[in-house]
Amino acid sequence: MITHIGKQSVIFKRTPFIKSYASIAGKKESEGPLGKYFDEVEPDEYFGMKSFEAGESEMLKRCIKNAFSKCNLSPSDADVLFSGDLLNQCVSSIYAIRDLNVPYLGIYGACSTMSEGLLLSSLSVASGFAEISANATSSHFCCAERQFRFPLEYGSQRPPTAQWTATASGCIVLSREETKIKITSGTVGKIVDKDIKDAANMGSAMAPAFADTVKTHLNDLNLTPDNYDLIISGDLGTLGSALADELLLRDGIDIRDLHFDCGCEIYDLSKQDVHAGASGCGCSASVLCAYILPKIEKWELKKVLFCATGALMSPELSKQGESIPGISHAVAIERA
Amino acid sequence: MITHIGKQSVIFKRTPFIKSYASIAGKKESEGPLGKYFDEVEPDEYFGMKSFEAGESEMLKRCIKNAFSKCNLSPSDADVLFSGDLLNQCVSSIYAIRDLNVPYLGIYGACSTMSEGLLLSSLSVASGFAEISANATSSHFCCAERQFRFPLEYGSQRPPTAQWTATASGCIVLSREETKIKITSGTVGKIVDKDIKDAANMGSAMAPAFADTVKTHLNDLNLTPDNYDLIISGDLGTLGSALADELLLRDGIDIRDLHFDCGCEIYDLSKQDVHAGASGCGCSASVLCAYILPKIEKWELKKVLFCATGALMSPELSKQGESIPGISHAVAIERA
Repeated sequence: MITHIGKQSVIFKRTPFIKSYASIAGKKESEGPLGKYFDEVEPDEYFGMKSFEAGESEMLKRCIKNAFSKCNLSPSDADVLFSGDLLNQCVSSIYAIRDLNVPYLGIYGACSTMSEGLLLSSLSVASGFAEISANATSSHFCCAERQFRFPLEYGSQRPPTAQWTATASGCIVLSREETKIKITSGTVGKIVDKDIKDAANMGSAMAPAFADTVKTHLNDLNLTPDNYDLIISGDLGTLGSALADELLLRDGIDIRDLHFDCGCEIYDLSKQDVHAGASGCGCSASVLCAYILPKIEKWELKKVLFCATGALMSPELSKQGESIPGISHAVAIERA
Repeated sequence: MITHIGKQSVIFKRTPFIKSYASIAGKKESEGPLGKYFDEVEPDEYFGMKSFEAGESEMLKRCIKNAFSKCNLSPSDADVLFSGDLLNQCVSSIYAIRDLNVPYLGIYGACSTMSEGLLLSSLSVASGFAEISANATSSHFCCAERQFRFPLEYGSQRPPTAQWTATASGCIVLSREETKIKITSGTVGKIVDKDIKDAANMGSAMAPAFADTVKTHLNDLNLTPDNYDLIISGDLGTLGSALADELLLRDGIDIRDLHFDCGCEIYDLSKQDVHAGASGCGCSASVLCAYILPKIEKWELKKVLFCATGALMSPELSKQGESIPGISHAVAIERA
């Protein structure tokens, strides 16, 4: 049912199908070019809770519940749910999922979480480990700034290379029951570290990992970029996207016409003052669920390669002089 | 190849086999009753590095390399490696694995990480997702105290309910090639939160999750406790273990004669001044790899249920008044 190809890739012969999906986003994201596509938009950055962290959990919980209710299920109908996020000890996920009565496996891949989760959820369904599985993730600007940089109250200035963590979440429910969208293959990424040490330049830290995973995926499956309608990166931003394209070009792989970076698309970069684009697990998760998957359903896209990209950054280790390793996992999503 | 049973459990029909395993521990652990069983003992708590965090990474890296070298492989021969740990952004794992050139999927389950990783690694091998897979984890007393409580330099007093984070690591390599030890089934845990808020009483926070997973596993597979030679909890300590036994007894499940808690066994509780026992991902990981698996190989144990237990605690959310959710996943390990 699953064929291992090359070192890092797999083909799902009995393909998992996307049963349902949902997205939710904050105010700033709703004002961007993709604003009208989100299932739900919440103008209150606390999501009705008392802290930003509790707000992020509430956002993620709403998103998960919505994904299940769209297919007339509840989260407790899933046999396994994969979720993780940017916060220490993955607390958005843990406190969102605590009351959902669902078997839970925690994952951590920073902003690569949506493709890691989708890969593991696909594996679960394709192998019979689960009949219904789901994956979700979230990010929240106010939580992430405090976590990785400075509390908002400090009013720190952001350099031009900085990206804006999207306040958003996405959730996908899979099963073997045939629907309009299927998962056909995937590639597990390796950690790639090119010695970037600037926490305000994550695009550059992640670009080499994205390039490595795309190249490996195409090689392993003997494909060229034009086998896909889009090759989607998570949140490389303007700088990281240009760098990734260049790195791939050096290996003779031209994805420039097909490259769609969620971090470049969720905001209007000319007007919304986010500098190099968006970042955060919720960026690629929400763009996938709000914008890409509906396009596949409507035949506007036939086949995409979704590669969320993670900067495995830690403030503690940055203080100790460490560089920021990157990782990216690829999942091929097709019109069934 | 994988049969889904009940809501949370699976049976591996084409069983994964344990190809190799390794353990490493610090000085205090080497002075405990299991000291002579560890593959490697390092008296320097920095493991030759400049910080405790870099030391924990070095320990984990040595352990992973040793597990692979024992079966004449290198980590880069694995098709996927699952690892996570207690530190923010799972940095012990990330910096340990960065140079190993291996496809990596990050997981987070606090001290339940060893059973979560073993479950996902088993799934990978049983399904054909990977030919060779591995899982590893670590914990380090000095890192964990700074992370979750206070830096050691503060000299904080520890209450009697407190547990001592073990400085240790374990790694298991799986494949489908027949060996003496196989993985036959597993149960994915749910988050259980009984409103424990004391970060110095983690045994009580985790005990209900352990009891829930053991009960579910036995029910799903229609087993009684005596189908196992041991039912192993990760790090409930003395308090948590007694509580777990009592919770299970209330449901008519008596595991008292079979219950082995790694947190109670790694130190000599009468002499080593660790209060309620040990904790940390590395506690159950190293005890499994140093003490339990060799006993299975030698027929001294025929079949055990390994349930690492995690307190999904976050200092940030504790400050916000939140309780500590617990989780535990079960993996059945048998003499082949």
